[in-house]
Amino acid sequence: MTTTQIVLASRPLGMPTLDNFKFAEMELPVVGDGEVMLESMYYSIDPYMRGRMNDEKSYTPPFQVGKPITGTIVASVAESQSPFYKKGDVVVGMLPWQKKMIAPEDDLQKINVAIAPPSYFLGLLGITGLTAYFGLLDIGKPQMGETVVISGAAGAVGIVAGQIAKLLGCRVVGIAGSDKKIKLLKDEFGFDDGINYKTSPDMAKAIAVACPDGVDVYFDNVGGAISDAVISHINFYARIVLCGQIALYNSTKVPTGPRIQPMLLTRSVLMQGFIVSNYKSQFPEAIQKLEQWLSEGKLKGTETMLRGFDALPKALIGLFSGNNTGKMIVEA
Amino acid sequence: MTTTQIVLASRPLGMPTLDNFKFAEMELPVVGDGEVMLESMYYSIDPYMRGRMNDEKSYTPPFQVGKPITGTIVASVAESQSPFYKKGDVVVGMLPWQKKMIAPEDDLQKINVAIAPPSYFLGLLGITGLTAYFGLLDIGKPQMGETVVISGAAGAVGIVAGQIAKLLGCRVVGIAGSDKKIKLLKDEFGFDDGINYKTSPDMAKAIAVACPDGVDVYFDNVGGAISDAVISHINFYARIVLCGQIALYNSTKVPTGPRIQPMLLTRSVLMQGFIVSNYKSQFPEAIQKLEQWLSEGKLKGTETMLRGFDALPKALIGLFSGNNTGKMIVEA
Repeated sequence: MTTTQIVLASRPLGMPTLDNFKFAEMELPVVGDGEVMLESMYYSIDPYMRGRMNDEKSYTPPFQVGKPITGTIVASVAESQSPFYKKGDVVVGMLPWQKKMIAPEDDLQKINVAIAPPSYFLGLLGITGLTAYFGLLDIGKPQMGETVVISGAAGAVGIVAGQIAKLLGCRVVGIAGSDKKIKLLKDEFGFDDGINYKTSPDMAKAIAVACPDGVDVYFDNVGGAISDAVISHINFYARIVLCGQIALYNSTKVPTGPRIQPMLLTRSVLMQGFIVSNYKSQFPEAIQKLEQWLSEGKLKGTETMLRGFDALPKALIGLFSGNNTGKMIVEA
Repeated sequence: MTTTQIVLASRPLGMPTLDNFKFAEMELPVVGDGEVMLESMYYSIDPYMRGRMNDEKSYTPPFQVGKPITGTIVASVAESQSPFYKKGDVVVGMLPWQKKMIAPEDDLQKINVAIAPPSYFLGLLGITGLTAYFGLLDIGKPQMGETVVISGAAGAVGIVAGQIAKLLGCRVVGIAGSDKKIKLLKDEFGFDDGINYKTSPDMAKAIAVACPDGVDVYFDNVGGAISDAVISHINFYARIVLCGQIALYNSTKVPTGPRIQPMLLTRSVLMQGFIVSNYKSQFPEAIQKLEQWLSEGKLKGTETMLRGFDALPKALIGLFSGNNTGKMIVEA
């Protein structure tokens, strides 16, 4: 049986282009003992994947040129040689960008589609929700009444982090790249205020206006000049959660900017980078909490859904232009 | 009775000069109830004092032009109207740069000169030792076998932090500005290796050679390009203690450099600014520990001692040229 895959054709220099991806036909091996054949349903499109397109040391190994791109995927079991899975089960795992694939049973987790739409297990109830949860609660440690600023606030993680901060009684200010996104954050997701960085000529001033009491927690998905503006209003004993630096992922040289250490020093500020897998042992309790909030209507998922396998490269490239609101998903 | 004081004559732009200080005669008031008259013995000269010469918000309020410089001082009681102090007692407190002064009893702490030379209560057994202790132990959290890099390693705090890291079984690498200082760190204070940044054309390479297993804890007293080099070799889950940024204190514009957030993010690094007064409630137990290590010969104090009240401005300016090894003290 054959299927289609997408391999890394070449490493991008700066912003990725369609040329960096190549569609290829491949022969599927037979399903071995302890394996299943899967049909992809939903593909998770995440900013960290840009880093894996470079040949550099990070928390996940780089993609290999000529080998398939991998990502988190929700798939259905088409054929099973595993006692743990039967045809029709819906699973999630770190899998290759292929329409169909053979996977070992150990790489998969069954999901309960009675709880939420299957794509939510890539977003709110998946790595995205866990990232927001641990970054905000374990590093940001927001206290009732504090001001929480979120960059990339209309992105997958930002929109969850903001909702959790609201649940905790914080003043939440979101930074995003369009008036439409800002309106959505305020009207649909309960943010107290929002700043469109594309139409704010003086970001530091905009932060000052939106955060009259300064910034206690900065949940940073973006980096660069936006972060400089936020950090210029950081409070004593503030916490900066380094979750993403999407503004810098396509840099072709080392980005420079104002040195932040003097500010962090004189104001006793904590800055902490993390990846969600640091918290692996605590995933079950966090997922339980996220499911509870979702079922109580306290958290809402939101997705930008593109259709068809062919849309995958375009979807990933689009992340870096802010084409998504909430989680970027490609439906098979 | 008259005495001499040193007031801030003008705010420095960049490196302070002698013109920024003015000697003035003043009349001492009579000693009131609950007050003592003090004669200064030892003046503590500290990098943070540079920040107070600027008119800007920080963890301590700025010095006022026309008002005396203040700092930590060891003094003897010459006259007492307090039931808690008698003539001849030796005390320490945050006091004005004056030969003699009247101070309220509440601003002072008695010191036990049987334990150590009185000047040690400004260094190893004072704010300096406490700063090294809490920065290293509470933020740096070094584990046996880890590599700890200290910038400004021959400075007052650095030389204590390095000794404590050695006590904990770490590999300790010090960065300082002369071969003589490096030799001292290795021969007298047990550092495993040292780097003279003034004669190392490629600091990143020098760090790589001195830290073959990368850097687990970076105790930063200096900032600037030296820190860039250290951070380029920072390990996953490393801790960066922001204790000082002396390389930047005399900057006349906002210093720029490579953005560090991407590195901190991808390697799950923690960076934390602090000032020692955050730990005030834990001072007694820390001082007890420092005293114990000193009495057991596990920690050694070291001082650069200038003589005479007139040397005070020169001593403070000299800090920024690295004129001191260990604690900079002026003896009355």
